[in-house]
This record gives sequence, C-alpha cells and structure tokens, in this order.
Amino acid sequence: MTRAAPIAALLVDWGTSHLRVWAMSPEGNILAERHGNEGMGAIERTAYPGIFADYAASLGATDDVPALACGMAGSRQGWQEATYGDLPCDLAQLPSLAVKVAGERRDVRILPGVARRDIARPDVMRSEETQLLGYWQQSTGAVPALVCMPGTHAKWVQSTDGGRVLTDFATSLTGDLYAALTGHTVLRHSVAGSPEETDAAAFAGAALASMAEPATLLMRLFSVRPQGLLHGAGAATARAVLSGTIIGQDVAGALARFGKPDRIGLVGGGALGPLYRTVLELAGIAVDEVDGDYLAIAGLAAAARQIWPTRFDEAQRAAS
Amino acid sequence: MTRAAPIAALLVDWGTSHLRVWAMSPEGNILAERHGNEGMGAIERTAYPGIFADYAASLGATDDVPALACGMAGSRQGWQEATYGDLPCDLAQLPSLAVKVAGERRDVRILPGVARRDIARPDVMRSEETQLLGYWQQSTGAVPALVCMPGTHAKWVQSTDGGRVLTDFATSLTGDLYAALTGHTVLRHSVAGSPEETDAAAFAGAALASMAEPATLLMRLFSVRPQGLLHGAGAATARAVLSGTIIGQDVAGALARFGKPDRIGLVGGGALGPLYRTVLELAGIAVDEVDGDYLAIAGLAAAARQIWPTRFDEAQRAAS
Repeated sequence: MTRAAPIAALLVDWGTSHLRVWAMSPEGNILAERHGNEGMGAIERTAYPGIFADYAASLGATDDVPALACGMAGSRQGWQEATYGDLPCDLAQLPSLAVKVAGERRDVRILPGVARRDIARPDVMRSEETQLLGYWQQSTGAVPALVCMPGTHAKWVQSTDGGRVLTDFATSLTGDLYAALTGHTVLRHSVAGSPEETDAAAFAGAALASMAEPATLLMRLFSVRPQGLLHGAGAATARAVLSGTIIGQDVAGALARFGKPDRIGLVGGGALGPLYRTVLELAGIAVDEVDGDYLAIAGLAAAARQIWPTRFDEAQRAAS
Repeated sequence: MTRAAPIAALLVDWGTSHLRVWAMSPEGNILAERHGNEGMGAIERTAYPGIFADYAASLGATDDVPALACGMAGSRQGWQEATYGDLPCDLAQLPSLAVKVAGERRDVRILPGVARRDIARPDVMRSEETQLLGYWQQSTGAVPALVCMPGTHAKWVQSTDGGRVLTDFATSLTGDLYAALTGHTVLRHSVAGSPEETDAAAFAGAALASMAEPATLLMRLFSVRPQGLLHGAGAATARAVLSGTIIGQDVAGALARFGKPDRIGLVGGGALGPLYRTVLELAGIAVDEVDGDYLAIAGLAAAARQIWPTRFDEAQRAAS
C-alpha cells in the first residue's frame, strides 16, 4: 500500500478556476495531492459534496479525516458561505473563524476571507489571507510591511507585527486588463503572433514610463499601435510594452496608495513573479520573493494544526 | 426632378466602420447625402470603385463631378494610399497634398492623414485633420490651442495660429478600453443590465478621483466589483464609475502631457460630448463645443473649394 501512512487532514484550495487538495501526514508532510479544474466557475452549487467526496476517496482519506478549505468555496455562491473577517485582521485568529460545512459526515471547515468595508475603497480577498498566514508562519514573523501578490487581480497587502495583523489592502485589475487589451481592443492586431519571444528593454522602458508619468496611461496604451505602424515594432515588443506599462502602473499605484518601502514581499511562483521583481527593483525596492503555491499549503497546514491539534504530532504542534 | 441643381463635388468620409457621402452645390449647400456601413473593416480592397460608383449614381453625380475623401480610404489597406503629412502640419496646405485615385474616370482625391513620427511617442490621425480644417474655417481662426476629440480612440490636438497649424497630438485608448472592460473582464458582472439609467454623482466622483490620483487607476477600476459585493452598488452606478474613471484619466493625461489651458475645444456630437464637457468643467476648464459631423463636412468642403475653385461660386471662393 502506498498510502499506508495515516492522514491527519485534507488541505483544500478551492478557487474560481481550480481545485487543489493535499493529504497531510501528522508530521506535516504532503502524502498525496490531486489538482483539477472543478473551480467555482465551472460547477453547480450542488456539486461540491460529490466532487469533494471523489477527491477525498482518491487520496485515501476516510470519513474521519477532517478537511480545511480556503478560497471561493466560502463565497456566497460557493459550498458554504464563510463571511469575511474585518480589518485589522489578526491572522492568528483566522483558524477560529472557520465555518463548518453543514450536512457533511466529515468535519469540513472553510476559512473566511477578509473585507475592507470602507465605503470609498471597499475590497475583498479570499485565499490570499491563507497564503499570508503561511507567509507569517514560514518567515517566523519577518514578513515585510507591504506584500505584493501578482495575479489576474493583483493584491497589495499592508501588515504590522511581522505579518500577523493585516491592516490594509487593495486589489488591482492587472492580468484581467492585459487579457482584455490584447484580446478585445485594437491592440490585438499589434500583439498577434510571436508569443514566445520577449523584449526586456521595451518592458523596462514601458514600466519606467508608467512610474514616471502615471497620468498618461491611456495614451501610452494606444501608442503600441502606431509604434507598429510607423516604426515596425513587432508583436513581441508590443506584448512587452503592454506588460511593462500595466505592471509599472500597478507598482506606481501601490506606492501612491501605501508609500514606498525599502523592502517588499513578493508572492511569486508564476510567470508574473519575475516581471514584478524587475519593476520593483527598477523602483529601487528590495524584493523578498516567496512561492505562492507553497504559502497556500503552509497557511492551510498552520490553520489545520490549530483547529485539530490532536491529529498532529507534538513536535509540529510546538512549532506552530 | 429633385436633383436638378448642379453638383459641384462629392464629399466623402470613408472610415473603418462607415461610409458617408454628401453631394454639395456650387453655393456650398448639401443637396443630398447617403450613409452606409461599407467601412474599410467590412469590405475587400477591390470593392472601393464599385461601392463608390453606386453611391455617386444614387446621389445623381455624373462622372464629371469630382470627389474628395478623407479617412481610412487613404490608409495602406484602403482605396489608394495617401501617406501622412508631418508635424507641424499647416492645414491650409492639406488640400494640396490630396492624392488622386488611379484608374478612375472621375477625379477622385483622398486627403492625407497626419503622423507624429517621434520614436518615443509616435501617433497617427486620419479624418480628424479634416475635421480640424473645418473647425479652423468655421471659427475663422479662433480654435482653442488644445482640442479634445472624444471617440473609440480619443484625440487631443495642439495647434497654433488659431487652429491653422497642428503642432502636436496624442491618442488615448478610451471608448475601446471601456468596451473591453465592460465586456471581457470580471467587471462585466458588475455592469450587466440597466444600460438606460445613469448615476451622475458616481460619474463625477470617479472622474475627480482619476484626476486627483491618476497612479491608482488599476485599483479604482477593480473597486467597481467590491462596491457591488459589499455595498450593493448597481449596474448603473458601476457603468458611471467606469466611464467617469476612464474619462477622468484621459483628461488627467492630456493635462499632464499638454498643460492645463483656460479654454478647450471639444469636438462633440455623440454621446461622449456631454460626458467630456462635464469632466473638463470639473477640471476648471471652459469648453468651446462644436459638432463633429458638421466639422467633417465643413473641412471637406473647404478643401474641395481649394482644389477645384472653378466648380464653386465666386462668393464661396471669396469666403474660403
């Protein structure tokens, strides 16, 4: 039997476009994992129990093994609503706010998101708070006061107490905007083809332009088209300019909103990590980069140990 | 016969999405007009002669009546290329740069566009230069030094000599961006429904926010979503916020690029005119609004009189 080792808990990241489940041992090791595309956006609300039962069975987890989830499974349209925590949000308290899913024989709980309820600048996060709990645990309380989390919608998060208490955050329309610009505006003609190449100089120049003169963004976006028409710039350059322009604008916005730190935490791991690192370093900021997938597991594991301490080994409990 | 009056010339605005042809009398009156959707984007390159012959015939113009066109018909993918004039561009010289279409029995000419060939900020216009020629003619040389031309891609044009000499211009991705955001990003959920209502206060607030802090655009765009999730803002408010945010950013960019004038020319006429007027006035700028369709006819007519003076009455020639 390859799964003879006991499972302490199932850790679940259930987002809009993906479902990832890990089986964790009492010692805190990943025994098995399964990833799929049964995200919230792709399934009916009634499908959650059946899909999860299938994942749990395939990972060898009997009904007595508890499960802890983060992400969109806790949204109003998800499996069971786990409403938002408020700011300031003490991440050490987050596990105690997990909501038990009704009607399940298994002990399944979902971690809440965090809301900024301010009327002028409302904002929400779901799953990033769990990554940040992992960041705080793994860095032993040395998380930079400002953390950048790139993605379809990038998040910038301010904290105190070495990353334990979230005090403010803002979300930017970044990857989503890039996809809309390159797919559904006149700029689609400029970026057609050559997706594998890149143009690092054009990327850096565009990012610096966004940071130097953020007001002119709409003009700099359009200029990608005449750069091709008049100067023969190719698709790789056009993509690099658009990417640099958007990431530069995002960084400029974060510095305007939260002030400029000496050091920033960057939750990377995907293709966007190195691009954000480049722009942040162009802005003169030291970057402390960590892997986002790893942080999600670390955050879920830390919360699971706190919720079900007797299922984990003493050494693990002492360390958490 | 309703078309007994002689036709001095056909005036043609042939853009990406539309074709508009007017029959003008020697006295400078519009005798007849025909509009259609045979724009450059909808037709084959070889179709220009046949489509135009059909329009001319239906307007009662025999082969001896000359025709003057502006717009995308003069682009490389158009009927006959009329390459760009350079900056500074003396609009009084523009008619002399018109290119004769080869292979036509009729004397058909196409006005060139204008290019800004600068390597850092290249830009092009086609048809706006003709509207600006009309603006200069109609205002008898009193065009404001900065003119705003809203549209799918908004143009901001700087001139001297009361509008006769174009010295600089920039194009912004505005209407195109709005359509991509509301149709192809997560914000589409926030704007679904209620297209007829509006929210003037939300529009003005969003425009002021863009002008006050242009760097944070990507955050303010995303915030439309949590405004709905947390505060129940409806689709009409979401649309108003997006529209105000984009137009406010466009105005902020123009003022950063060209400086803030006391008075600005606004080539309106469509739905965007009143919205730009509102934002420009919020910025403390007096607005001199003129109708864009009228300016296109006026510019084509002024150029036609200059190219074919003997086809127009003395009084018209003296006035031009």
